[in-house]
Amino acid sequence: MSMKADFTQGFVRDHWYAAAWSGEVGEKPFARRILNERIVLFRMADGTVGALEDRCPHRLAPLSMGECAEGGLRCGYHGMVFNAEGQCIGIPGQDIIPPTARTRAYPAIETYGLIWIWTGSGKPDHSRFPHIMGYGEDGWAMLDGGYQHHAGNYRIEIENLMDPAHTTFLHKETIGNKAAKDVPVHVAQGDKGLTAFRWIENVPPTPLDQKSHDFGEGRVDRRVAFNFELPATSFVDIAVIPAGMERSEDNLMHGGIRTFSYKFLTPETDRSTHFFWLHLRNYRKGDQQLDAILRGNLEKTFNEDNEMVAAIQREQEETGLRQRTAIAIDRAPIMALRMIDRMISAEQEQSDVAKASA
Amino acid sequence: MSMKADFTQGFVRDHWYAAAWSGEVGEKPFARRILNERIVLFRMADGTVGALEDRCPHRLAPLSMGECAEGGLRCGYHGMVFNAEGQCIGIPGQDIIPPTARTRAYPAIETYGLIWIWTGSGKPDHSRFPHIMGYGEDGWAMLDGGYQHHAGNYRIEIENLMDPAHTTFLHKETIGNKAAKDVPVHVAQGDKGLTAFRWIENVPPTPLDQKSHDFGEGRVDRRVAFNFELPATSFVDIAVIPAGMERSEDNLMHGGIRTFSYKFLTPETDRSTHFFWLHLRNYRKGDQQLDAILRGNLEKTFNEDNEMVAAIQREQEETGLRQRTAIAIDRAPIMALRMIDRMISAEQEQSDVAKASA
Amino acid sequence: MSMKADFTQGFVRDHWYAAAWSGEVGEKPFARRILNERIVLFRMADGTVGALEDRCPHRLAPLSMGECAEGGLRCGYHGMVFNAEGQCIGIPGQDIIPPTARTRAYPAIETYGLIWIWTGSGKPDHSRFPHIMGYGEDGWAMLDGGYQHHAGNYRIEIENLMDPAHTTFLHKETIGNKAAKDVPVHVAQGDKGLTAFRWIENVPPTPLDQKSHDFGEGRVDRRVAFNFELPATSFVDIAVIPAGMERSEDNLMHGGIRTFSYKFLTPETDRSTHFFWLHLRNYRKGDQQLDAILRGNLEKTFNEDNEMVAAIQREQEETGLRQRTAIAIDRAPIMALRMIDRMISAEQEQSDVAKASA
Repeated sequence: MSMKADFTQGFVRDHWYAAAWSGEVGEKPFARRILNERIVLFRMADGTVGALEDRCPHRLAPLSMGECAEGGLRCGYHGMVFNAEGQCIGIPGQDIIPPTARTRAYPAIETYGLIWIWTGSGKPDHSRFPHIMGYGEDGWAMLDGGYQHHAGNYRIEIENLMDPAHTTFLHKETIGNKAAKDVPVHVAQGDKGLTAFRWIENVPPTPLDQKSHDFGEGRVDRRVAFNFELPATSFVDIAVIPAGMERSEDNLMHGGIRTFSYKFLTPETDRSTHFFWLHLRNYRKGDQQLDAILRGNLEKTFNEDNEMVAAIQREQEETGLRQRTAIAIDRAPIMALRMIDRMISAEQEQSDVAKASA
Repeated sequence: MSMKADFTQGFVRDHWYAAAWSGEVGEKPFARRILNERIVLFRMADGTVGALEDRCPHRLAPLSMGECAEGGLRCGYHGMVFNAEGQCIGIPGQDIIPPTARTRAYPAIETYGLIWIWTGSGKPDHSRFPHIMGYGEDGWAMLDGGYQHHAGNYRIEIENLMDPAHTTFLHKETIGNKAAKDVPVHVAQGDKGLTAFRWIENVPPTPLDQKSHDFGEGRVDRRVAFNFELPATSFVDIAVIPAGMERSEDNLMHGGIRTFSYKFLTPETDRSTHFFWLHLRNYRKGDQQLDAILRGNLEKTFNEDNEMVAAIQREQEETGLRQRTAIAIDRAPIMALRMIDRMISAEQEQSDVAKASA
Repeated sequence: MSMKADFTQGFVRDHWYAAAWSGEVGEKPFARRILNERIVLFRMADGTVGALEDRCPHRLAPLSMGECAEGGLRCGYHGMVFNAEGQCIGIPGQDIIPPTARTRAYPAIETYGLIWIWTGSGKPDHSRFPHIMGYGEDGWAMLDGGYQHHAGNYRIEIENLMDPAHTTFLHKETIGNKAAKDVPVHVAQGDKGLTAFRWIENVPPTPLDQKSHDFGEGRVDRRVAFNFELPATSFVDIAVIPAGMERSEDNLMHGGIRTFSYKFLTPETDRSTHFFWLHLRNYRKGDQQLDAILRGNLEKTFNEDNEMVAAIQREQEETGLRQRTAIAIDRAPIMALRMIDRMISAEQEQSDVAKASA
C-alpha cells in the first residue's frame, strides 16, 4: 500500500472559519493568511469587524499596513479608503472612483470571543456556523484564548485529532493513558461529522476525578469521544460517571463530570494551520490553580502534536507519499478525510454547474 | 484593468551605476551583486579601483575571498592573480597562462565619493555619467554616505520616487504635508528624463524655512519637483522663494532656499535594489544639529519606503500582477517606466543588430 | 574551456560510509541524512547499533522522534516497533502485522570509534571496508572525534583534499608552506585510489620536527602524500626522515616521524557533506599540549576549507558550471573524479543488468 499525498485537494471553502481571537483585532488592522489568501481584519468606528483581501487594488500594498478610518480601512500608501464590502469610498485628490477600485470582502461575524469569516464564493450559510456546547452557560468553566501556529496541512491535523491511539505514546507526560491502550474504539458517522469513542469501564476514579466530584468509594465509567465536525472542528468530549449508571445524555451531563475540548482548525496554507482552542468543563469553576494546570497541560499536548504534525508534513513533502501501511486505528481518520473529500467535490461540482449555467 | 508584473523586463545595461561608497572599498576586496551579477571591487597599490566578476575562472572561487596584490587581485584558493582588465597575470607553480584564464572586467570610475561601474557590453559612454548639482560648490552643505538595501525591484522604487502623493500617507511623521494633498501635479517629459512638480503658492514659511532664510513677514511660494533621470537616478528638487517673486532659475537658486535630494538606484537582483542617497542644500552649511535632524528624517523616510516597496514586491510575486486599478497620480510613474522600457528595447535591438552583422 | 557542473552524477552507493561517531548514538535515537536519505541510528539493549530509514511506514513519522525499545526502535506516534532488519515486530492494540509494515534497514558496523553503514542495494562487500593505518597500535597517538558539517558536494571536497597547491594560500596561518610552492607534485594511480605526493628534500627540520625526533645537526627529507581511497576517504601521509636516508617503507615508518591525517567524507545531500576526521602520529604520544595545538590547527584548516567549498558550491549552483579554465595542479583532482565517475557507471550498469535479468 502506498498512498500518494494529496496536497492539491484543496480546502472546503463554504465554511465559517475562525480567523482570530477578538482581542487580536484592536485599533490596528490585523493580517492573517487563511486558505492561502492574505486577509486583513479591522474594526470600524462602531467596533464592527470587517475582513478584506489584504491588498490594495492600486499597487497591491497590504491594507494591513494602513489604518482604520471613517467608514472602513485606509491604505497606508496613497490613502484610498475601502469599506467593509471592499468598495473604494475615497481617493485623495481625485473625485471619480474607478469601478476597478475594489477589493474582495469576506463576510465576518464576531461571537464566542472569536472573529469568523465566510470564505465561500456564494451567500454565507449560517446553518454551517459552529456551535460550542456549554459556552457561557451556568456552572461551566472555560479556558479560552488559545492560539497555536501549526506547521502542517489541516488533513494531518485531523488525522491526529481523530486518533485516540497516539495519546499513549506522544503525550505520555500529560494526557496519555496506558490503561486505555487496549480498549476498543467505536466509530459512528453522521451527516455532519464523525465520532470515535470508547468506554473505559469500572475503573477507579483518578485523583483529579475524585477532587472534582464526589464519587464516594465507588468506581467510575469514563467515556472519551473524539468528535469531528465537518470541515474543521474537533472536540473531545469526556464524561465520567459512577460505574454502572445509565448512560443517558442527562446522566452524562449531570451524573458526574464532563469536559469539552474544542479545536477550530483554519488552514493557513497547504502546509500550515491556525489552531484555535477552547476548553470547557462543568466542575471546579473558578479554581484558578486547576485552570493553570489544565492550560499548561493542553499547551504542552498541542505543542507535541504540532512537532509531530510538522515532521509528517516535511516527510510528505520529501517523499510525495502519505503513508505506506495502514493499521486498525486509521479507521476514523480515513473516514473523516473521505467526508472532507466528498464535501470538496460537491463544492467543485456546484461551482461547475454555476459556471455552465452562467 | 489588470497589469501583469514584468519581472523579466530586465535592466538598462548601458549605464554607469553607483556600485559602492569609496569608503566601502578599503584594503580588503569588497563584494556586491549588481544587475544580478556578482562583482568584486578592489584597490590596487596606487589606490585605483578595479571591478571584476567575483569568480575565479579556475574553480569559481569568489575573488572577494582573496586579497589585493601587486598589479591586481589574488585568488584566495590557488593564488592566481588578475589585473583590473580581468587578465590572469600569474599562476603559482606554472609559467604558461592559458587564454581561458580571465574574468570579466567592468570599467570603474571613482568620483562624487562613489565608485561607479559601467555594466554595458560595449564601450562606456561618458556622456551618460550622472551629474550632481551643487556638489562641492561654495555655500552648499552635503549629507552623504547613505546606503540602504531595499527589498524590491527598482521599478517599484521608481514608482515610489516619482509619486509625490504617497508622502502624505506613508511619511506623515517626517516629510508628509497635508496642505499639499490637493495641489495639482504637473508632469514634464524631456529626452533624458521626467519631472513631476507642483507649486504650493502663497503659504506661510515653515519654521525651518524661517530659520534658514530671512523671508521677513511675508509668505512663500514652494516648488517641489520630483525628477527622474534615466535610467536610475531620482532627485527631489525643492525651492522656497518669497511669494510672488519671479520664478527664474537664478531666483530659485539665490532668492530663497534650495535642496537637492539625490538617490542612485542600482539593481541588485530582480527583487532588490542598492539605494545610495546624497542630500545637498544651500543654507545653514555647518549646522551640525540640522545635519543630524535631516539625516534622521531622511533615513526614517527611506526606511518607510523600503518597507512598502518590499511588501509590494512580495505581493507582485505572490499574485503575478502589478496593479488592478489606476488612479490619477500614476501618470509620472507610468511615463518613467515606459521610458525605461524603450531604453531597454533600444539596447536589445542594438544588440540584435550587432549579432546579425557579426 | 567550460565544464558543466555535474550535480546529478550521484553517489557511489556500494560503500561503507562513516555515519556517526560512536558517542553520537547513545540512549536516544540519532538522525542523520546520508546520500540524500534520512537515516536513524539507534542502540538496542545489548548495545548493538541498528540503522533504519528514518520514517515510519505508517504515517511517515520520523523514527528518530521515538525511543529505543526491546528488540528495536519504537515509533513515537503510535508505538509501532521495528527491529534492526526494518521489520515491524509490534503494533499496539493490533495482533496482525501487515507485510507492508516494514522500513528499509542499512547494515551497520561499529569500529574505529565510528558507526559505518552500507548504503548499497546488494550484499555488503566487507573487502571495501576502510582500513586506518596505525589505529590502536603501540606508539601511535590519536586525535579523534572530529566532525564538521561541510556545505558543499563531496566532489568539491575531493578536489580540495587532492590538491596540495591550495594550502599555501588558503591555509597560510596553519599548514601553508611557502617553501613547498614550487616543488613538483607526482601523481600515482592504483586500483583503489590515487596518490599525489612530493618530496621536499634536504631542508632543515622544523622546530616541531626537531622536538619530536632527534635529527641531530642534520637536515631532513620530507614526503607529503595526498592519498585518495575510492570513493570517499582522504588521508594525508607525512614522513620526515634524515636527509639522504633510503626511502624504504620501514625507514619511513621508523627512521623519523610519521603522520596520517584521515578524512571520511559522507555525502549528506548533493550539496553538503559530513566530514569525519581522525589524526594519527607516531611521536610524542601523550603530549597533551601538542594534542591541543594540533587539534586547533586541524579544525581551523578544515573550517577554512569548508568556507571555500561552500562558496564554490554556491557559485556552481549559480552558474551551472564547474570551472572555466584548467591549470597544472588539477591533474590529481581530475583523475580522482574520473575514478568516481567510472565507479558510479559500473554500479549503474550492474543495476541495469540486475533489472534486465529479473
